[in-house]
Amino acid sequence: MQERRTKWSTNFSEWFRDVIFQAGVYDYRYPVKGAGVWPPLGMRLRNNVINLMKRLLDETGHEEVLFPTLIPEELIGKEAEHIAKFEEEIFWVTRGGKESLSHRLALRPTSETAIMEMFKLWIHSHTDLPIKIYQVVSVFRCETKATAPMIRLREISMFKEAHTAHRNREEAEEQVKEAINIYKEFFERLAIPFIISIRPEWDKFAGAVYTIAFDTLMPDGKTLQIGTVHYLGTNFSKAFDVTYLTPQGTHEYVHTTSYGISERVIAALIAVHGDDHGLVLPPFIAPIQIVIVPIMYGEDVEVLNYSKEVFEELRKKGYRVVLDDRRDITPGEKYYYWELRGVPLRIEIGPRDLKQKEVTLVRRDTFKRVSVSKESYLKVLEETLNKIHCTVRERAYAWFNIKFHKARNLKEVWEILEERKGVVEVPWCGNDECGLKLEEEVKGNVLGYDINEDKSAVKGEKCIICGKDAEHWIRVARRY
Amino acid sequence: MQERRTKWSTNFSEWFRDVIFQAGVYDYRYPVKGAGVWPPLGMRLRNNVINLMKRLLDETGHEEVLFPTLIPEELIGKEAEHIAKFEEEIFWVTRGGKESLSHRLALRPTSETAIMEMFKLWIHSHTDLPIKIYQVVSVFRCETKATAPMIRLREISMFKEAHTAHRNREEAEEQVKEAINIYKEFFERLAIPFIISIRPEWDKFAGAVYTIAFDTLMPDGKTLQIGTVHYLGTNFSKAFDVTYLTPQGTHEYVHTTSYGISERVIAALIAVHGDDHGLVLPPFIAPIQIVIVPIMYGEDVEVLNYSKEVFEELRKKGYRVVLDDRRDITPGEKYYYWELRGVPLRIEIGPRDLKQKEVTLVRRDTFKRVSVSKESYLKVLEETLNKIHCTVRERAYAWFNIKFHKARNLKEVWEILEERKGVVEVPWCGNDECGLKLEEEVKGNVLGYDINEDKSAVKGEKCIICGKDAEHWIRVARRY
Repeated sequence: MQERRTKWSTNFSEWFRDVIFQAGVYDYRYPVKGAGVWPPLGMRLRNNVINLMKRLLDETGHEEVLFPTLIPEELIGKEAEHIAKFEEEIFWVTRGGKESLSHRLALRPTSETAIMEMFKLWIHSHTDLPIKIYQVVSVFRCETKATAPMIRLREISMFKEAHTAHRNREEAEEQVKEAINIYKEFFERLAIPFIISIRPEWDKFAGAVYTIAFDTLMPDGKTLQIGTVHYLGTNFSKAFDVTYLTPQGTHEYVHTTSYGISERVIAALIAVHGDDHGLVLPPFIAPIQIVIVPIMYGEDVEVLNYSKEVFEELRKKGYRVVLDDRRDITPGEKYYYWELRGVPLRIEIGPRDLKQKEVTLVRRDTFKRVSVSKESYLKVLEETLNKIHCTVRERAYAWFNIKFHKARNLKEVWEILEERKGVVEVPWCGNDECGLKLEEEVKGNVLGYDINEDKSAVKGEKCIICGKDAEHWIRVARRY
Repeated sequence: MQERRTKWSTNFSEWFRDVIFQAGVYDYRYPVKGAGVWPPLGMRLRNNVINLMKRLLDETGHEEVLFPTLIPEELIGKEAEHIAKFEEEIFWVTRGGKESLSHRLALRPTSETAIMEMFKLWIHSHTDLPIKIYQVVSVFRCETKATAPMIRLREISMFKEAHTAHRNREEAEEQVKEAINIYKEFFERLAIPFIISIRPEWDKFAGAVYTIAFDTLMPDGKTLQIGTVHYLGTNFSKAFDVTYLTPQGTHEYVHTTSYGISERVIAALIAVHGDDHGLVLPPFIAPIQIVIVPIMYGEDVEVLNYSKEVFEELRKKGYRVVLDDRRDITPGEKYYYWELRGVPLRIEIGPRDLKQKEVTLVRRDTFKRVSVSKESYLKVLEETLNKIHCTVRERAYAWFNIKFHKARNLKEVWEILEERKGVVEVPWCGNDECGLKLEEEVKGNVLGYDINEDKSAVKGEKCIICGKDAEHWIRVARRY
């Protein structure tokens, strides 16, 4: 039963591979590069995460839809910048049965083009706007780099993509703000720390006017992009000729936005909260919140009945609870089993608990144990779950916050990225050339600058590359 | 606003195309043959149907999972009968970016082969069995026949497929029975009438030992297959070498089953309950159960406030309710609008209702109207929704039940299929040759025989083709 595991603290990437597999969250042994299987426990976690996102979108007037997986080559090629970027990555369906298709079909890498084609049919008048839709689907990208489970995939199977259309730039940019607020709330609820950056020109979404991205930091100090919001302007509406009739009787192009998240959110959730023992899941999102382990000696019917009573009570209260009454393994093995799976709270019930009319609560995050009387345990249990959420959150943020540095010369940047890890902010003139040179010099990636940048903080600073007046403190990191 | 519509009663197939599009359930204008878009209202209906199915599966110990869309050619070719049938229909991905793939990948037409490959990794011992999993995914079949929205697709986007593995035939066949009971309950809840048949040898699922199918009857008298359950025996486990260790220490092949439904269920739901005015949705599954239409003359704030009060009350009670307070269209246009969309109950609130402290309820199924006092309307409303469900159900079953016929000669069969429509039962010797000849002679399809066939009923009957002793009353119909 006891499997040796790599450590979260010293070898994160192996830990991640091991733990998602051993905990039954994700099985990467499926024989297609960059595609994996979600087994039952992982699927339940995934459903909880998706449902949280859906709730936030539904509450803000988004409507769920579903578009086809296949996009005709002609459609996907309509927006020039879009196809220029994606053509390297598109999987093409060229045959049906034993025949060649007369027109080849793309497996969607993202759905802007499919959706614009229908927006053209759906949008006639200003009264049809705004449109705010989303779907959760598989998208496909033929990654040439090494793939990594849940993080760099060829089939991204949990792509939540929202697409909106508006009357003008102002309304579309209001939508960008709403999207940012939705994502903020979403990551807050998952207790995942993040920074929000305006991506540099050379790293924006293909076809966007600008891209705003959410990054978190993995335990190895590399950043992970976990959400993006794009203002697409009229780039797609012009390519697809999507206009609306204004109240004045003229026709105008709609302004569109899109924003997405993927299973990387779950990778982040696992990575930022985990420890050497396995997953640590925030109670709010955990598929199993509580596990009850009866400590039985032989045929201890009374302990088992007492455990069942607690189980039924918690189930009726709406907790996601499991009673582990397996006979073929020891309580110690059960602890190990459920700790690996990140169940936030364990209830141990032994003969002493029975005798004293108590239960023993053990926290997954701190391993602290406390015995409470059966009479009052419900209140303590609820408080403990809330405390676990807070502790898990604070721990993640504390770790995150010390990983930000400022630097004014390349040597220092290099040293931080190599040794101390994390994100470095450096002064930058705003020139793409300097940004690209910076990436090359430090073997890092420019994440962009803070969306709420304090302009005065950059006053007097000089670009780390060319020495001219700096425009931004720009973020640099190694990234996934 | 008033669009002319084809009639359910006289031209079903055009009615179906028109009504799903105009009601916002399905948009078939997407430019890929056999692929369509689910707009918001259709998506909500679809989610309600899927959630009902998920609930029934979860309650019976099934676990949701998610497998990749892509299946390597090598895997999908492992079971000989399976690939022999599906190779005509598989879409192949042959290129990634600008490169040819070294191994081409199939878009899954169904997932037995992908799942068996993982079962091989997941199943070791008898204690790992049974496994009961399901997923809701897109599957792809390169239909060469004419496609039809929701009914004959190249991308089936609501494929619920369950897959199970068991220790022996007996346990696997128990699972087949459980699957049949789940589907029965599912169709009962949707008030869709059905028959259950054991499909003939030549029409079973590719790789199955036998196939049991659910068929309903469309308004044009053609049957629609809406669910199938397959006992796969050890055909797949042998092809994929999936064995388990018995308590006795030997290795045995697992016995597997699979069972599926698709968006055809929604097509059936719409078809069997609809009328010349549009959709008629059973209240239990309708995305919108109640629409409130205030009848206002000018700035009638009081009627509007009264309507809002009713709206809030119903919303809080958990009803899926809409208040249609649009100013630019008349109440009559609203009636038309919501009748088309099949909302089971309309509440009209005019000045007289306000004055008399009443509301007027109008049923979608019978168009009967009744005024009830505001004080007691909640009880009447709940009763009315239940009555609508019963009426809709009875109406569908009554129509269905008169469409079954028995015949003993081909001329009669032909006449029924051509004129009276529906399903004909004929005596059959059990020989494939006679079955295939029967299909040819009457330009129909053999659906199979009743799973609960009364053997004595066929005694003394002679095969309609060869005249030998009959084994079964076999069902023949024209089908989708």
